[in-house]
This record gives sequence, C-alpha cells and structure tokens, in this order.
Amino acid sequence: MKSIKVKCPASLSNLVCGYDIFGMAVEAPYDILELKNTDGEGISIQHTDDYGLSTDPSKNIAGVALQSMVSELKLKGHFEIIIHKNIKPGSGIGSSAASAAGIVVAANLLLGLELTHQQLLTFAMDGEMIASGSRHADNLAPLIYGGMTLIRDTDNFDIISIPSPPLFITILHPQIEIKTSYAREILPKEVPLKDAVKQWANTAGLVAGFLQNDYALMSRSMQDFIIEPVRSKLIPAYDAVKKESMHCGALGGGISGSGPSMFMFSKDEQKARAISDAMCKVYNSTGIAYKTYVTSINQKGVTVV
Amino acid sequence: MKSIKVKCPASLSNLVCGYDIFGMAVEAPYDILELKNTDGEGISIQHTDDYGLSTDPSKNIAGVALQSMVSELKLKGHFEIIIHKNIKPGSGIGSSAASAAGIVVAANLLLGLELTHQQLLTFAMDGEMIASGSRHADNLAPLIYGGMTLIRDTDNFDIISIPSPPLFITILHPQIEIKTSYAREILPKEVPLKDAVKQWANTAGLVAGFLQNDYALMSRSMQDFIIEPVRSKLIPAYDAVKKESMHCGALGGGISGSGPSMFMFSKDEQKARAISDAMCKVYNSTGIAYKTYVTSINQKGVTVV
Repeated sequence: MKSIKVKCPASLSNLVCGYDIFGMAVEAPYDILELKNTDGEGISIQHTDDYGLSTDPSKNIAGVALQSMVSELKLKGHFEIIIHKNIKPGSGIGSSAASAAGIVVAANLLLGLELTHQQLLTFAMDGEMIASGSRHADNLAPLIYGGMTLIRDTDNFDIISIPSPPLFITILHPQIEIKTSYAREILPKEVPLKDAVKQWANTAGLVAGFLQNDYALMSRSMQDFIIEPVRSKLIPAYDAVKKESMHCGALGGGISGSGPSMFMFSKDEQKARAISDAMCKVYNSTGIAYKTYVTSINQKGVTVV
Repeated sequence: MKSIKVKCPASLSNLVCGYDIFGMAVEAPYDILELKNTDGEGISIQHTDDYGLSTDPSKNIAGVALQSMVSELKLKGHFEIIIHKNIKPGSGIGSSAASAAGIVVAANLLLGLELTHQQLLTFAMDGEMIASGSRHADNLAPLIYGGMTLIRDTDNFDIISIPSPPLFITILHPQIEIKTSYAREILPKEVPLKDAVKQWANTAGLVAGFLQNDYALMSRSMQDFIIEPVRSKLIPAYDAVKKESMHCGALGGGISGSGPSMFMFSKDEQKARAISDAMCKVYNSTGIAYKTYVTSINQKGVTVV
C-alpha cells in the first residue's frame, strides 16, 4: 500500500480588480487530504468533517478529479481518499479548489506521475466543474503553481506566476451561504466601456505593484468598479468592514471570489491583526457567526505534510 | 534672449490591449521645437512645415499649453515658438502630444522652473485638449516620463513607468486621415463582461511580460477583443498588414491610438526591417501613400537637442 498526506490551502480569487483572472494561495485555513493506493479497483471517499459533502466519487469534487486521472492515465488499483476539510464549502476562499487541486497533486506525487502543472490543472478543473458548473481556474491555479497567479487565458491554460513582496492577509468569513451561481447571475452581462477601462488600468497597475514591490501602487490599484458594487450587497456590513479595515491601515481588499469571505492586505502583521480585531468588532454587532484568519501568501500551493 | 531647442518624439498609444491606458515614446519620427524668451510680452508661433496648423496662440496646441503656463506661473517676457513638425497631424502617433509635451518641457528647461512631471503633464493636457476635445494623457505621459507608461488614473495623474526589455518597432503610417473624434464615436458604449475580462487579463499580462522580460507573454497579451474589431475597419488592408507582419516574426501589434498608423513590435532589428518590407509590399498594392519607420523605444521623452 502506498499512501500520502497533503495540505491543501485556501485561496483568494479576483483580488478586487481582477475578476476571473487573479488568484492567490494563503497559509490558512487549509484542508488535509490523504490518499491511499491499494490492490483492487475503484475510488472510495471518507470525510472526517461535518460538512455533509457527498462521498459518492461521481459527486465528490476530489472523486471526480481523481476519476478523470484514473480514466485518462489508466491508473491501477483502489484509491481511498480521506478528507479533513477545514475550509467551509461556499466560503469564497476556494474550498472546492482545495479538494480538486489537493487530490491531483497527491496522486501525482504518490504515483510518481511527473505531470506538468498544466496537466494537473486540467484534471483539477474536471473536479472543480461539478462545484461551480463551469471550468474556472482562478482558485486552482495558485494551488498548483503556488503564490499569486494571473490566468491570462483559461482555455489555453496561460497561467503566469506573479511574485509578491511580503504581504499579510486578514480574512473574514461570515458563516452565511452565497451560491456561486447566484453571485454570477446578478453580474451585468454588459459593462460601460469607461468602467472597463478603469478596471483594466487597475489590473495592469496591480501587477506592476506586485512586480515592483510598490505597496502604494498595489493599494491604489485595488479598486473595482464593476463587480464589487453588485456583490457587496450580498455581504452583511460589507462597507463597515472595509471602512474599518482601511482605517487600520489595510492596503486594500474586498470580496474573495463570489463571497461571502472578505480579505484585506497589509504590509505588516501588526496591522493585519488590528484589522482582524476591527472585523470582529463590526461582525459582533451583526449577530452573524464568523471566523477570521490572519495569514500570509502560501508560495508553494498544495504540499506534502 | 534665452533660447532652447528640443526633440519631441512620436508615441504609440493603447498598445493593442490597453485602450486609453498605455503609451510609449519612440525614437522616430520626431518634431523639433524651438522656444525663445525675449523682452516684451505675448506668444508668437511659426511653423516651418506645410501642415497648415494655426499659428494663433489660442488655437495652436503648443500655444495653448504655453499660455496655460504663462498665466498660472506668471511667466514674464515674449515667447517665440518655432515648430519643425515631422509627425503629421492625425497620424495616430501623437503629433499633437509632441507639440504639447515639447513646449512645456522646453519652457521648463529654458526658464529653470523645475516643475514636477505631474505639473508638466497638467499644462501639456491643456494643449492636448484643443486637439482631441478631452483630457487624455496616453501620448503625453511617455513624452514626459519617457519609455512606456501606464496611466492608471488620468484624473489623479497616477502615471506608472513600465521598464521594457529591448524592443524594435515598425510603424506604418498610411497617409489618410481618421478623425480621433469619429474613431471614438464608433466605439461601443457598453462591452460584454466576458470580453472585458479577456482584455483586463491581457493588460495584466502585458505588464507582466514587460517587467519580466518575457517576450512570449508580451506577444500573447497583445490581443484586443473590443477596440480593434471596430477601428481596424477604418484602415485599408489592416488585416493583410497584420498577417504579413506576424509571418515576419512580429511579437504583436496593431493600431496606434485611433489610427491610421499601425505598429509592430519585434525582438530584433532584422525582423523589424523585414516587417517594414512586408508592410510596403502590402501598401504598394493599395495605391495609398504611406510612410514606414523602423525604430525603438525612446526612454527619455522630450530632450534638449
């Protein structure tokens, strides 16, 4: 019997201005995923968490991604997947991506397949597909490439790693559910050209900020004229959280993915902790359960424990 | 009498994917602008070219920009401007910007004003305003900051210099006129969100390509799903020029500004010359007069001769 245990980090996507193109792996929270390969055939799945996710391989994200690998690469034996999920499904910080990227990286390492990043991403997208209903890679790419990624072209797997200066991240996860499909539905199909221009100036600015270690530019570029005005309405006390975070010295931040999680970037850990305190204060007054995390960029993506 | 002579380079704007945000100064063509400051008052203008531009200071781009400086900074004396224009007005490669940026840099140096880039840009925009009817800085910023610039926010003068790896540039200037105002009018007011996403992935990709010296990424990022499909129809043989240029090994290229000029980037001079030959071949068959230039990035903008 062969076995492996991997750490599957959460991830932020969009990074305010870059809807559908930017992703970033973070150190916390993360899932643990175990994979065992024994004699026999088929896939079995066990969840040690209470999230009630399907353990049917054809309905479980990790199961579908692994089945895709098994079929395509004609992998032999029985596979047992044990998932210890800490990233709540529907959180907006890449819970499904953690399972999808985690299983493909685990299988690749366990069986010595030496697949390319692109191959891994393809299989992971098959799994992610059943969660979001479409082939998106914004949360998957950083889990496979590590750090911050730009998805220039999903169809052609054009993924670019964007190196980053040190950055601290505060995440607020309100324990409410926002369906990704609904969060997509409410977006405008068409956007004013003048707003699109501002947005593509900001994605260019954010990349320049990261690559030139220019925190002030990163901060100025984290503006969203298209998605945030619509989606922020789904998140209770969104404006108050953002306002208080900026008062604490956040560089910028906003909704992660389709929400409800919010994140804020800071230059130092002290500010990131002060932001966490401020978020708690705002959310305590809402009566809504929540979690906060003070973390940093995960530069390696899914790794062996 | 004090006098100064400056070289005012042409500039590319938009750089395919970055409508209204990217600009780049080039070594050729360029105007020469002379400025003399003598006793007396007022502004007089002389043009040594045949373009028939107004020499009335209130209707001439350089005149308006200088008048703005004179009024705001209470500059003394009579100013005589002599312009030797080589960049044909309406070419799409920053003819008006060369006059507007040229005069403010000349006055700044001649009088030892030590103005900031932002102050220079403000005065130059007053001049540019009478050419385009709106306060745009895409061609002005590279002439003041040098090299390639990202205009993240025109209203707040947020200009970012983007360093570049060595690059050769071939410019084709068909001698036809396209009114900037018309080229703006025909653009859609609204664009599909999915196209806007592709576009902001490409502006982010182009900046990453420039900053990481990744020519292949620069090449892949030079795609335009919004402006080129509309404006390219105004330029005779556009598709043929682009196709033949790419066959010669161009990294990418397209319309400069609102046209009619086209440009192509290459990694080496030999390719840039082959592209020029290919452009000539296509344009010879159209019967339309044209000029081509093989040049490189001008890293300094307007400089003293």
